[in-house]
Amino acid sequence: MRDFSGDHSALALNTATLGHNLDGFGAGWSPEQVIDGCAARGYGGVVFWRREIGSNATAIGQRAKAAGLKVAGLCRSPFLVGPLAPNGREAVLDDVRSSIDMTAALEAPILTIVVGGVEPGTKGMSESLKIVADRVAAACEFAERAGVRLALEPLNPVYGGDRSCLVTVRDAVNLCEVIAADNLGIAVDVYHVWWDTDLANQLQRAGAGRIYGFHLCDWLADTKDVLLDRGMMGDGVADIRGIRGAVEAAGYEGLCEVEIFSKDNWWKREPGEVLDVLVDRFRSVC
Amino acid sequence: MRDFSGDHSALALNTATLGHNLDGFGAGWSPEQVIDGCAARGYGGVVFWRREIGSNATAIGQRAKAAGLKVAGLCRSPFLVGPLAPNGREAVLDDVRSSIDMTAALEAPILTIVVGGVEPGTKGMSESLKIVADRVAAACEFAERAGVRLALEPLNPVYGGDRSCLVTVRDAVNLCEVIAADNLGIAVDVYHVWWDTDLANQLQRAGAGRIYGFHLCDWLADTKDVLLDRGMMGDGVADIRGIRGAVEAAGYEGLCEVEIFSKDNWWKREPGEVLDVLVDRFRSVC
Repeated sequence: MRDFSGDHSALALNTATLGHNLDGFGAGWSPEQVIDGCAARGYGGVVFWRREIGSNATAIGQRAKAAGLKVAGLCRSPFLVGPLAPNGREAVLDDVRSSIDMTAALEAPILTIVVGGVEPGTKGMSESLKIVADRVAAACEFAERAGVRLALEPLNPVYGGDRSCLVTVRDAVNLCEVIAADNLGIAVDVYHVWWDTDLANQLQRAGAGRIYGFHLCDWLADTKDVLLDRGMMGDGVADIRGIRGAVEAAGYEGLCEVEIFSKDNWWKREPGEVLDVLVDRFRSVC
Repeated sequence: MRDFSGDHSALALNTATLGHNLDGFGAGWSPEQVIDGCAARGYGGVVFWRREIGSNATAIGQRAKAAGLKVAGLCRSPFLVGPLAPNGREAVLDDVRSSIDMTAALEAPILTIVVGGVEPGTKGMSESLKIVADRVAAACEFAERAGVRLALEPLNPVYGGDRSCLVTVRDAVNLCEVIAADNLGIAVDVYHVWWDTDLANQLQRAGAGRIYGFHLCDWLADTKDVLLDRGMMGDGVADIRGIRGAVEAAGYEGLCEVEIFSKDNWWKREPGEVLDVLVDRFRSVC
């Protein structure tokens, strides 16, 4: 392993970057191996996906803490609306409650919410966003009781049809204002917002109190697959330093979480190598 | 052919919808066949691509006019910036001049501008948009002398890397305001803007005098290919009626131009069938 003795304590790993060991990609590191690998390299935190945790949330959370890592959050809620959501409001909220409970058991502060796409039978974003507002408001109540905060993550507009009718920081801040819950904020991901020339203004609107997460990767100029061809920081065209600057100028002081879905490149590499490259790129281009 | 005796005189065909006869897709109708097919069905206009016109611009323009069709515009300028643009400012502007000359020879009022992606060696949109502003300003002067107007078309943010650093109507109106040329406006395409909850506000900012084109298609919820899997109106999740309403509320009175890139569906069909379906869908869902 390379020597990364300087400070990169703001760096967190989202485990998707290693290829989701349950998906047949990546080298299949367990959560325990991920914790050890990140701790050994001086990472500040780690973010898991629900599928990796199973019924071991408490033990995994404690192990991370003992290793000196923050569990910065959990990915993610079910889709709340749209063609890929559980069938009906109660089924959605039941699964939201499960994900909130898992977040609490991990002792993670944040559950990421990906809201889902356009509700079948409707057109455009507005009807779906109304349904989202209702369901997020209910989720905020459960989360409040569990001591968990919810981070609305707007996705790139390319996912507007099936994965997220929430596609801008502007709309996410609007939702926060409408719902007005003390435990509701936003997550800002370079992949989803890099194109938005109004981003800095919207982050100022959000303010420090509402920015709960900041996710790093890069947008490759010739992206081959909008789901699974994200770039390593520095390999694409996003102004990562500018975006980080805008996020921090708005008052964000949390971790920088690397989340790279990369089926044909990074997911094929040895996890330890990927963790080394992340540290290197975090220090050189972020 | 079906009887479409009612009024759909606002409907225009962008020839890309028939599969670009020079690309090996579609049934290979010539511009003359396209003109005859649209005229026979009562279309109001047609929009060609440069590659279809060659050196026959004057004759094709006259034939369309004689058939009762407006040549509503020409697709399109070269990319002005980014990895796919001609090499250097002079090469870009030479090709822009050629496309303006072809537009004038067709007696079409509008040349569509697709600005190109992020300039190599830069990050984010801002540097590239500055280069775009310089080149569009120069293009407006040539176009003025040729009696042609230029329509800046913002593309969906998914194309931000290589095809268009201009990804919102907001930014397009900003460019119009900065350049402040009387012959510069915008084109609004459902595929590119359907997700934008701020669209109606931005169209009001643009106003009637600056909306030069309105393009129809649909966004399929489970889009398979972001370049060549556009949907027929009614088959997707875009609020087409709402968008058309917002465009017309801002004062637009021009044609509605259908532009559907659909390699695995509509481009495989007989052109006459496609033209019939367009009329039907235009009347029923737009």
